Amino acid sequence: MFAEAQSDPSLSKEAYEAQEARLRVALLKAQYERLERAERALLIVVAGIDGAGKGATINLLNEWMDPRHIQTLAFGPPEPDEQERPPMWRYWNELPAKGRTGIVFGSWYVPLLLEAARKKPRQRRIEAHAEAIRRFEAVLSADGVQIIKLWYHLSDKAQAERTERLLASPETAWQVTPADRKVRKKYDRLCDAGRLAIGLTNGAHAPWVVIPSADDRLRAVRTSEAVLAALRQRAAPRVDPAYAGPPAKPARGARRLEQLDYDAHIDKDDYETVLGLLQGRLARAVRSPDFRRRSLVLVFEGQDAAGKGGTIRRVTHALDARQFDITPVSAPARHELARPYLWRFWRRLPRQGRIAIFDRSWYGRVLVERVEGLAAPAAWRRAYTEINDFERQLAEHGAIVLKFWLAVTADEQLRRFREREQSPFKHFKITPDDWRNRKKWREYGAAVDDMLARTDSAHAPWHVIPSNDKRYARVQVLRHIVAALEDSL
Amino acid sequence: MFAEAQSDPSLSKEAYEAQEARLRVALLKAQYERLERAERALLIVVAGIDGAGKGATINLLNEWMDPRHIQTLAFGPPEPDEQERPPMWRYWNELPAKGRTGIVFGSWYVPLLLEAARKKPRQRRIEAHAEAIRRFEAVLSADGVQIIKLWYHLSDKAQAERTERLLASPETAWQVTPADRKVRKKYDRLCDAGRLAIGLTNGAHAPWVVIPSADDRLRAVRTSEAVLAALRQRAAPRVDPAYAGPPAKPARGARRLEQLDYDAHIDKDDYETVLGLLQGRLARAVRSPDFRRRSLVLVFEGQDAAGKGGTIRRVTHALDARQFDITPVSAPARHELARPYLWRFWRRLPRQGRIAIFDRSWYGRVLVERVEGLAAPAAWRRAYTEINDFERQLAEHGAIVLKFWLAVTADEQLRRFREREQSPFKHFKITPDDWRNRKKWREYGAAVDDMLARTDSAHAPWHVIPSNDKRYARVQVLRHIVAALEDSL
Repeated sequence: MFAEAQSDPSLSKEAYEAQEARLRVALLKAQYERLERAERALLIVVAGIDGAGKGATINLLNEWMDPRHIQTLAFGPPEPDEQERPPMWRYWNELPAKGRTGIVFGSWYVPLLLEAARKKPRQRRIEAHAEAIRRFEAVLSADGVQIIKLWYHLSDKAQAERTERLLASPETAWQVTPADRKVRKKYDRLCDAGRLAIGLTNGAHAPWVVIPSADDRLRAVRTSEAVLAALRQRAAPRVDPAYAGPPAKPARGARRLEQLDYDAHIDKDDYETVLGLLQGRLARAVRSPDFRRRSLVLVFEGQDAAGKGGTIRRVTHALDARQFDITPVSAPARHELARPYLWRFWRRLPRQGRIAIFDRSWYGRVLVERVEGLAAPAAWRRAYTEINDFERQLAEHGAIVLKFWLAVTADEQLRRFREREQSPFKHFKITPDDWRNRKKWREYGAAVDDMLARTDSAHAPWHVIPSNDKRYARVQVLRHIVAALEDSL
Repeated sequence: MFAEAQSDPSLSKEAYEAQEARLRVALLKAQYERLERAERALLIVVAGIDGAGKGATINLLNEWMDPRHIQTLAFGPPEPDEQERPPMWRYWNELPAKGRTGIVFGSWYVPLLLEAARKKPRQRRIEAHAEAIRRFEAVLSADGVQIIKLWYHLSDKAQAERTERLLASPETAWQVTPADRKVRKKYDRLCDAGRLAIGLTNGAHAPWVVIPSADDRLRAVRTSEAVLAALRQRAAPRVDPAYAGPPAKPARGARRLEQLDYDAHIDKDDYETVLGLLQGRLARAVRSPDFRRRSLVLVFEGQDAAGKGGTIRRVTHALDARQFDITPVSAPARHELARPYLWRFWRRLPRQGRIAIFDRSWYGRVLVERVEGLAAPAAWRRAYTEINDFERQLAEHGAIVLKFWLAVTADEQLRRFREREQSPFKHFKITPDDWRNRKKWREYGAAVDDMLARTDSAHAPWHVIPSNDKRYARVQVLRHIVAALEDSL
């Protein structure tokens, strides 16, 4: 894998100059064509041996390409606000738009490489890191982000010589970092770590390229050639299914919406008392010191007019305004369409001690987008797996994730639609879309049942609430939230 | 000011019900009309006595209006990432788009109110807080954000009664916060603080409205009426000049661009050595422990083809990729046009220990937007003051702000344009815009001289660098950066 790079090949000045003009013109042309098409973003992950000149890649690409359409995405140790979200959060946040290029330093490979370069690597951690990387790259690759990964490599002798050469002159000595000086001692372990990481994550859809780095000219040419080949690749590659994780299997065959007890109700007199007591328990739970290290993610889905808004208000009534955010989800905006589907939801994840409420959610892909044909079948089928993985990352990081489907019968929905039409201040809640959706009641029902069967998990359970009696539904939702919080804290 | 609210007026159930339907219909209508026009955002600042039911305002407005177009912006004590930027950063970050409504809790009034409610308020701090608020609200009001401020008020007796009533039942006792219980003791000081804050910041363009809050029904009606009046106000109000701060006066009358020594140059042989040594000093300065509590903001402006890109690469060559961000500035995108002009620059401010590099900047408003007529004369004239205030906030928070104008002569520009046209890989750098701008050389020159005269300040100085010799310019820029860093650290 590293054989060629280990031999420290070089390129003569003449050969380099012959290549330079050709490569620069070709890179610019390829960059503009991609911008024009705006079909996929390109992420260039930079890794390799310290002191191999990785940093020079930024200046090279910014000089040879049009730098206005390149972002350098460089990450150090996670900042406090980054530590409060799952590890992949900061990478999701910075994804470039379709057509654009990102150069990634300090990427999602750092934890894997650090573990693999330990004296005694812990096998289970390595496998967990690799698994997280494979899933992440699979989601991106399938959804509009192309990835190439460059490993900068040279022999330990060349590395040491380069370091000494730089140190010899005050004009260049500052370029040597403490890490560069330590390379020789740890060289073999770094090579092994790289070999392992590459072996575990070298998918055809997100390939590694080893760049011989002992010679500045050859490094520049090989980097450019790798980027050029990536820019020119038009067809989105097929993602290796082994990388995407197993498809989400239905948890059970039951058709859940039909089996609900829609007559469930609560007496009006009891309602206010029960609601107030539950709100009190909720208020206490989220103010408890234990909650400061957790977070709460609430998803509200349901048929039109099922009562999501009113239910959410009963929940937020118990919360301090500084503690929660409500994200109403509708059709994605232009800049959201330019990123993978889950991007806009990742951006709304709560800090620790906070509550994120989604009024509709990432489930739109397997509901409205599926039924209305807004997402291709491959995209919404893939989404079950992607969503499960997303929610697993939340839960593993300490978020309590609860999902509610507020279910009404077709008759009750009709009654509410009519009531809304007649009310001067509820009229806005009913649109031609609502009536159109209603005509597809059966298709939506099938999509909901599929969704419930494939995305109900222990770490992010669905609660399906019969909501023909709004008060009953509100009390049930609060009950589930309070129970989950009291159990977890 | 508080006389009516202090008398705890109330509204009968009948009177309330007669108002409710009318207000809800009117609020919705007004909200949709504003969304449709999308001319201004509306910020509703919520403040007042604890336990006056401020929080209920969120639920009220979300129930009576269309909640999909309302954002609740609630702020607690600043988080670590917020402390790393100037105090107003987090408010700038969250500004809603034109047409939309934001309800602000924990607003920019908190520091002023806390200071004013102290046993011995410090007059100078009060004045500084008030001044910062007035400037902030003046910038927003003049640039597409309408502001109303609601003060929720009731007598100390009514407050205590309300608290006791809530405490009497387990269904409502949880609504009482520790702050609510302390009100009675500090009531007079809270009233005085409110009176003072309102007096210092009650501009016609950002008015305060006192909401009597002892009675839930009256509070709801008065809140709705205040919001309704604001939503209906079509014309952007004239901002009181006393609030915007004094207009930026020219620092000197000299025409600086004409007085430069464009023959300044550096020998090619010296260049590499000097550059390397300066880069070394820069690298050491930004890696020093002292820099971890500062940040660096570099602005690069200049005529087309003056060499900004090449200069920036010589600077970043000395930096760790994790330490800097380059923001290339071009015409604002749609979602940026929906916010005040400075919004997109506020969002790019560096953390502590980081460097933000702007390739073109907020000076576009007084350069290209002025010359090309993209900003109204009132807008670009106002911008000098707004920009000075913005940079002052950065500097006061510890940022080192340096601004460079790279100056070439018209002849040299022409030579570079032709060279670019003939180079297969520099061709992309020259566009019809460049030739068009060149025809307005004189107008741009006048705009630059005005800009230099009005925005050159001790805390954010301009360095005008003759750049006919690119190498000379690069070395000069590095010299200034290194000197400023070494002086400050």
